[in-house]
Amino acid sequence: MNLTLSDIRAARERIKDSIYHTPCPYSLLLSRLCGCEIYSKLDHLQVTGSFKERGARNKLLTLSSEERQRGVVCASAGNHALGVAHHGQLLGIPVRVYMPKWAPMVKVSNCRSFGAEVLQQGETFEEAYSLAQAAASEQHLTFIPGFDDPYIIAGQGTAGLEILEDVPDVEAIVIPVGGGGLLAGVGLAVKALKPSVKIIAVESDHAPTLAASMQAKCPTRVQTQPTLADGLAVSRIGAACFDIIPSVMDELIIVDEATIAKAILRLLELDKMVIEGAGAVPLAAMMRKPHGLEGKKVVLLLSGGNIDVTMISRVIERGLAADGRLVKLNLSISDRPGSLARLLTTLASTDASINQVHHDRSFGPADVARVGVEITLETRDFAHIESIRHTLKEAGFVVV
Amino acid sequence: MNLTLSDIRAARERIKDSIYHTPCPYSLLLSRLCGCEIYSKLDHLQVTGSFKERGARNKLLTLSSEERQRGVVCASAGNHALGVAHHGQLLGIPVRVYMPKWAPMVKVSNCRSFGAEVLQQGETFEEAYSLAQAAASEQHLTFIPGFDDPYIIAGQGTAGLEILEDVPDVEAIVIPVGGGGLLAGVGLAVKALKPSVKIIAVESDHAPTLAASMQAKCPTRVQTQPTLADGLAVSRIGAACFDIIPSVMDELIIVDEATIAKAILRLLELDKMVIEGAGAVPLAAMMRKPHGLEGKKVVLLLSGGNIDVTMISRVIERGLAADGRLVKLNLSISDRPGSLARLLTTLASTDASINQVHHDRSFGPADVARVGVEITLETRDFAHIESIRHTLKEAGFVVV
Repeated sequence: MNLTLSDIRAARERIKDSIYHTPCPYSLLLSRLCGCEIYSKLDHLQVTGSFKERGARNKLLTLSSEERQRGVVCASAGNHALGVAHHGQLLGIPVRVYMPKWAPMVKVSNCRSFGAEVLQQGETFEEAYSLAQAAASEQHLTFIPGFDDPYIIAGQGTAGLEILEDVPDVEAIVIPVGGGGLLAGVGLAVKALKPSVKIIAVESDHAPTLAASMQAKCPTRVQTQPTLADGLAVSRIGAACFDIIPSVMDELIIVDEATIAKAILRLLELDKMVIEGAGAVPLAAMMRKPHGLEGKKVVLLLSGGNIDVTMISRVIERGLAADGRLVKLNLSISDRPGSLARLLTTLASTDASINQVHHDRSFGPADVARVGVEITLETRDFAHIESIRHTLKEAGFVVV
Repeated sequence: MNLTLSDIRAARERIKDSIYHTPCPYSLLLSRLCGCEIYSKLDHLQVTGSFKERGARNKLLTLSSEERQRGVVCASAGNHALGVAHHGQLLGIPVRVYMPKWAPMVKVSNCRSFGAEVLQQGETFEEAYSLAQAAASEQHLTFIPGFDDPYIIAGQGTAGLEILEDVPDVEAIVIPVGGGGLLAGVGLAVKALKPSVKIIAVESDHAPTLAASMQAKCPTRVQTQPTLADGLAVSRIGAACFDIIPSVMDELIIVDEATIAKAILRLLELDKMVIEGAGAVPLAAMMRKPHGLEGKKVVLLLSGGNIDVTMISRVIERGLAADGRLVKLNLSISDRPGSLARLLTTLASTDASINQVHHDRSFGPADVARVGVEITLETRDFAHIESIRHTLKEAGFVVV
């Protein structure tokens, strides 16, 4: 199947009744941060928290009534499973999902809440995937792939049509790439309608699947490492996606984990949005102010929001530390009564607010007349931290 | 000034160029949670993160050119200051903000980033407020009140017009109440156009300002306590607001702090939105499934998203604990080598995932042959916690 704009338009007709045309508002604060005019396509506001519903629903609607009755099967630890489960339920199609044993509890129970039968089997994703394919052929279920399928790609492309309608003078669209379905679909739609729009792909340096494939000029397997953008940790890009990508992509940007963490924090703080790592990579890329986009109208495709809340806490702490807004100081103070009080009084004069104090008399410095204190402070920025260190030294405290 | 629908329509004409008509999508997951059809008015997506811009801009646009040149002053530690600062900057009006000394650093710096002159003076909000009023009269600046003003109320009412357009068959709108400007404005607009829509106000039990005033039949001062919904901690409702509220409000619901925390967590997890406590009280009220709203079409006015990220971390932890998804167990185990390893092996069999282990040999139980261990676990629910306790007891561990 040679995918064209008309397939994406057909997908849109097919899915429009139950896929949310998500808004794409301007963000002043992100624009200031990135030095260009930033609009955010809020696809994390889909019911299951990601764009994956678009392709899943389009694929399900192309099945014959016999295939629908027999049911479908997929393998996924995340957004694809949620999309298939939800739309399977809406369409009355039985859904079975294979998830690896390590899949987070919350994703398993979310998937079940959409009526899917969830089997937690296999130590790795690849094992779960093989089990799903075996079940498909043995039990005559239709296997629903996560990205490497023309109907999936066409469904994801509908996000591109919406962007062009809502921000008609867009100059660049920044898109996360994992398996490549979203990039291929949106790229195809946008280049067909407005070829001047730059299509910029972003991936994590812990899963540089597209970079490797571009270099080899064919889909190439890479060894992925754990990443905050877990939704992008696909070891090989889809072949059907890679048929399209090189002709629609203008640039590929690779971002590191620390920048992804910062981008998640910026989206929480500035735009009040919960975005998962995979969805935050477009902002991570733009925070680096890539050459040629200064002042341009840029849409970030915020593809999903399914991040564990416990992960949010960790990202906030690390992001604040990376900003100089949270600091842990190790000090050694005298063992005499009143030392800790004097330390805290000195800190009070610096405007830092104290988060945690850990005062340990057993495991202190070698000098037994001194005691170790570990203090976590909320600060303004790195300059503030420097001035606090200075004030403490002036007052005679030893900062380790 | 006797406020009417035409004032609210005039406000809308005045402010429409630079106030975002925020979306009001359906939320399947919140609907399941509350047992009715929930739509969320996303006013936290305004540039400064709250609805307060609506009234602030409307008021600023009614000033004479002489008043604009002289500048304006307000007192606020939060959203009102941000709204006045941002729209003052857009309109070229000098803005001075008085904030109490304890105002969070991030709010001070955000306000400055919108070009306002921020003076951190006064130990209490009331002191900052008096200083702002004194500055207004001494320096001929126009004082911009936070809620008790007809132009402010009319501006906030524009959110009501948008809701009726976007969800024309709405049956109830749930609105947070602090000073009363949003409730009065939206209530007035909605009752004028569609009197069948129920207007439901929500306040925190730590600041039951409207409840006290309804009982006394006039604006009444209450002693507020610290609350997660800090934006609602106003000690007396606006007189101009209270002129309107009793005739437009159908019901007042009071929510407690634990439910507000849970509502913030649900909005983060289910709707991928960062909502501050004041903005989350409508969901908190609906989570209690108030009588008469089962199955109805209900709009939650999510009024703002300016919550400190450090507070988000705390809310997540407390919310998870309240859900039975995080638990801290205190155990006493034998002092012999291998005890802790055996404990952790036992826990591994329960499917709980270990978050923190604190093993303290110095401050253990009275029996010196035993040691205290504090373990924080991620769990599924309360039943899971019970089964873990059971497994530990069966294995001979003492859970304190």
